[in-house]
Amino acid sequence: MGGFTLWFTGLSGAGKTTIAELVAPELERRGLAVEWLDGDVVRTHLTKGLGFSKEDRDTNIERIGWVASRLTRHGAAVIVSAISPYEEARRKARALVEEFGAFVEVHVATPVEECERRDVKGLYEKARSGEIAEFTGVSDPYEEPSSPELRIDTTAHEPLESARLVLAKLEELGLLGVAA
Amino acid sequence: MGGFTLWFTGLSGAGKTTIAELVAPELERRGLAVEWLDGDVVRTHLTKGLGFSKEDRDTNIERIGWVASRLTRHGAAVIVSAISPYEEARRKARALVEEFGAFVEVHVATPVEECERRDVKGLYEKARSGEIAEFTGVSDPYEEPSSPELRIDTTAHEPLESARLVLAKLEELGLLGVAA
Repeated sequence: MGGFTLWFTGLSGAGKTTIAELVAPELERRGLAVEWLDGDVVRTHLTKGLGFSKEDRDTNIERIGWVASRLTRHGAAVIVSAISPYEEARRKARALVEEFGAFVEVHVATPVEECERRDVKGLYEKARSGEIAEFTGVSDPYEEPSSPELRIDTTAHEPLESARLVLAKLEELGLLGVAA
Repeated sequence: MGGFTLWFTGLSGAGKTTIAELVAPELERRGLAVEWLDGDVVRTHLTKGLGFSKEDRDTNIERIGWVASRLTRHGAAVIVSAISPYEEARRKARALVEEFGAFVEVHVATPVEECERRDVKGLYEKARSGEIAEFTGVSDPYEEPSSPELRIDTTAHEPLESARLVLAKLEELGLLGVAA
């Protein structure tokens, strides 16, 4: 079974991590070797010291993309959950990964109003008050993917249903092997 | 077959890359999935922007170690060739990798006088003239590994012979599988 990279992009609080948390154990149960590169976790290992300027965000995504491509090459089911707001940076990550396996871009398309309403980590409040600068969706752009493999409207789907949509897409793409 | 990390440490010009270049295709010929993280190459992808202070060198090695551990987990035969002058940083890389597979430290123990005599890239000359600051072995320390799996005296062994010693060590450690 070849490796692939499942790339979740979307605003802070959109539900990327929540959905990935449900998908990862399902992949493991099917015998895949999962490697989850969570944006926040990765920033402590791979990209410590980078900030949130466009340049630093691009470097962050390029680096995650490079590591994902290496892991994909060795047969891992790589999950990336990172805001990754810029189309060009995501395109570069895709090109790196596709040398070795499939790149499945999932846009967790929660509207900014809904993310702000939930505001799980209290970050939107800080962004609105100016305590956090360069906050995606508030003071920094988010470029929607033009043709992701999957776009999930989380206002219409609960997390479990969203995870099911992701697994169905992987199945459709022939990435889950023979296990039903 | 589980993954492992073969870590070459030594001065600039010691012969790390030369030996790795000979070992890598031999591992591939035995069916291993090789991933070579060369210090210079990695600095363009993983660690762009880092300099050569102790702090930056430690970050560089920690990051390489983290990626090596991830790849080891997924069954790759990871080769690292990096000066990696500090014992503590190498120890941390070892700890990360050993969660998932063997860490084989190879000290390419070419004396600084010999490295300087060869001076393949002309770097020692620049270090002596002060054009390059913080140069390992000249103006920056190199802490010799206290108990590497293998130490190669390259003044006594040609590159091909050195590569043979590395393969024999991997064989001895049971890392080459059943292929002779």
